[in-house]
Amino acid sequence: MNYQVVPKQELKERVAKLQQLLEHLQYDGALLTQHVDLFYYSGTMQNSIMFIPKTGEPLLFVKKSMVRAKEETPFNIEALGSLKNLPEQLLKKGYLFRKVGIELDVLPYNQFVRIKKVFSDTQFYDLSPTIRLQRSIKSAYEIEMIRQSAQVAYDAMQAVPNLLRLGMTEVEFIAELERFIRVRGHIGQVRMRAYNQEIVLGMVVSGDSATVPSSFDGPAGGEGLTPAMPQGAGWKKIEKNEPILIDMAIAVNGYIVDQTRMAIIGELEKELEEAYQVSLHILKDTEKQAKPGTLWSQHYLNALKMAKEAGLEDYFMGFKEDQVKFLGHGVGLELDEWPVLAKGLDQPLEVGMVIAIEPKFTFPGKGVIGIENTYVVTEKGLESLSFAAEEIIKIP
Amino acid sequence: MNYQVVPKQELKERVAKLQQLLEHLQYDGALLTQHVDLFYYSGTMQNSIMFIPKTGEPLLFVKKSMVRAKEETPFNIEALGSLKNLPEQLLKKGYLFRKVGIELDVLPYNQFVRIKKVFSDTQFYDLSPTIRLQRSIKSAYEIEMIRQSAQVAYDAMQAVPNLLRLGMTEVEFIAELERFIRVRGHIGQVRMRAYNQEIVLGMVVSGDSATVPSSFDGPAGGEGLTPAMPQGAGWKKIEKNEPILIDMAIAVNGYIVDQTRMAIIGELEKELEEAYQVSLHILKDTEKQAKPGTLWSQHYLNALKMAKEAGLEDYFMGFKEDQVKFLGHGVGLELDEWPVLAKGLDQPLEVGMVIAIEPKFTFPGKGVIGIENTYVVTEKGLESLSFAAEEIIKIP
Repeated sequence: MNYQVVPKQELKERVAKLQQLLEHLQYDGALLTQHVDLFYYSGTMQNSIMFIPKTGEPLLFVKKSMVRAKEETPFNIEALGSLKNLPEQLLKKGYLFRKVGIELDVLPYNQFVRIKKVFSDTQFYDLSPTIRLQRSIKSAYEIEMIRQSAQVAYDAMQAVPNLLRLGMTEVEFIAELERFIRVRGHIGQVRMRAYNQEIVLGMVVSGDSATVPSSFDGPAGGEGLTPAMPQGAGWKKIEKNEPILIDMAIAVNGYIVDQTRMAIIGELEKELEEAYQVSLHILKDTEKQAKPGTLWSQHYLNALKMAKEAGLEDYFMGFKEDQVKFLGHGVGLELDEWPVLAKGLDQPLEVGMVIAIEPKFTFPGKGVIGIENTYVVTEKGLESLSFAAEEIIKIP
Repeated sequence: MNYQVVPKQELKERVAKLQQLLEHLQYDGALLTQHVDLFYYSGTMQNSIMFIPKTGEPLLFVKKSMVRAKEETPFNIEALGSLKNLPEQLLKKGYLFRKVGIELDVLPYNQFVRIKKVFSDTQFYDLSPTIRLQRSIKSAYEIEMIRQSAQVAYDAMQAVPNLLRLGMTEVEFIAELERFIRVRGHIGQVRMRAYNQEIVLGMVVSGDSATVPSSFDGPAGGEGLTPAMPQGAGWKKIEKNEPILIDMAIAVNGYIVDQTRMAIIGELEKELEEAYQVSLHILKDTEKQAKPGTLWSQHYLNALKMAKEAGLEDYFMGFKEDQVKFLGHGVGLELDEWPVLAKGLDQPLEVGMVIAIEPKFTFPGKGVIGIENTYVVTEKGLESLSFAAEEIIKIP
């Protein structure tokens, strides 16, 4: 293979951590099926099912490709014949599975019914909150992976003055950015865990069309190309003096950095320039406040308060009825990871959490203005993994 | 909006057809949640839930964005407040919902449990086979949409001699193709219905690396860029005299055409050239055989027989243990639609079905060779929607 596999030690530590959690929950094990979780715990995304017992060695049942799974995971592998034989295969190895955790947030109903039928004596419990919380805390290795994406995000912003031309369509601009990041290792896909949610690179939109609301659970919308992809870049031409939002989720080695910068050809009007300063101000204030132990919710509420003080409450994170109610979200192998900086979520920030923080303002008829960096929570507070310059990219 | 919405008459006919099927099943209605099905029946992909009663007007409950859903669907809309209020909202309109069909193949378990709790007096049934069968038969409008994708697929193959250069990496080549189709309306995503399945454009791979098996349920694999995207284009450089597989799923207006062509810089070795002729021969024979009423399975079995006669059984649709057991698959808004030309699936082909047929051979150490066209089943038999030249693209 022309790529590096995930280090063995890294995977062992992830499994050991989950085993502690299983012990605490008094489950006999976890039965994992979702490809991203499988990759996280096993190092391989081959078509498989993974059993992680409370104690002892995990075991991977592989459907396709066996050859490749062997190269990618350090753990024991068996061929997955029929699902029916799975309990017997586990019994033979001496595993217990009376109480088992499983990913009920993503597993389709029909598939779970099939599993329940086969594991007729097993009690299943939803393990997804446990998995999502574990995955929200990144290792040094994972942070290094995100830094690789951040490097590409930096390079892309450096290239914007060369890629962006007056009169090109939004989709022509995003196609240039896509090519730029793709050849530097972006996997070409931005994974989301939530049902029905999808995103193509991000929101690369200009002027008024950035303010068109969409089904996407984020502050900017975008017209899109067709009602079958009604978000993000569309057919609109990029004009002079309108804000150009460059919100990109870049995933090198699968790990996402989420970054937003603004560009403009010409001059930004004063109201928008001022709103940009407010978004920067909110970001810098959040950087100061967000220490380990502070609550996810309080950073959203604090940002909302600052937006209100600036008289921009109606414009914050979308316009009026299309506002979204968060300030930031975890990123990693998926775009919609934990933590979510939103009202009502009163859990504490922990060291190692990686969060994209994105204060933005929507001005109907004018555009979306804002900034976004991806941060890691350290003992001392937030450390930015994004290092693109924070000024608006001005093209004369 | 800078795009056309789906025609009202088209949507009314789709809903009327489903209502006939609901009548036949004796269900009171269908409760739809998956974004692609929602788009198919309502014309909008805004975040919503759709209720289609056995008789009468369908109703769309929209979460986000209301404004936009109103522009995109001709049907009645209500705001979706809390899921809890949905039964009451339906009751007020006089709808019955004792027996309701729902998409249990894609709906995550937790979401279904939430719905069941709210609809405590409702019996739910899996409607996905019904929906998938209806969606497999395309209207004239849908076929026109697929033709638009086929036009871009044709143009892309015309451009290959300009885009492909000796020594470029696979990912550099796919990035050129991606840019080419993107600015012509490709939505930037290829949707799949199956749990965990995903694909980035397709399999654009060269020589030996095309033969690396993957978790993808298709005949070619590809190394990919990282174990977190272990399929398709990778870091390998494209060399002289090796087969270059250009398998692309292009979705303009959301509708996919799936097409494979081969390219080579230099000369293809005789064994591979001969295998290409066999794949063409299988394709042409299938074109002749596949009349309405013939069974999905028989075309796979016939192709397998032809591969055997040519002495290529072990190489057909993957190598040995990594072989996939089908010859073709339906395409439309999703890549993995019905019909599936596979053993055991003994349903008849029907007029209007659209199928990507892809006889391919995998030669370990050498490459993957084959061809793929997208066809519509007509009264007379298969009509090819793909019209790119079928010769191997030879670059000196």
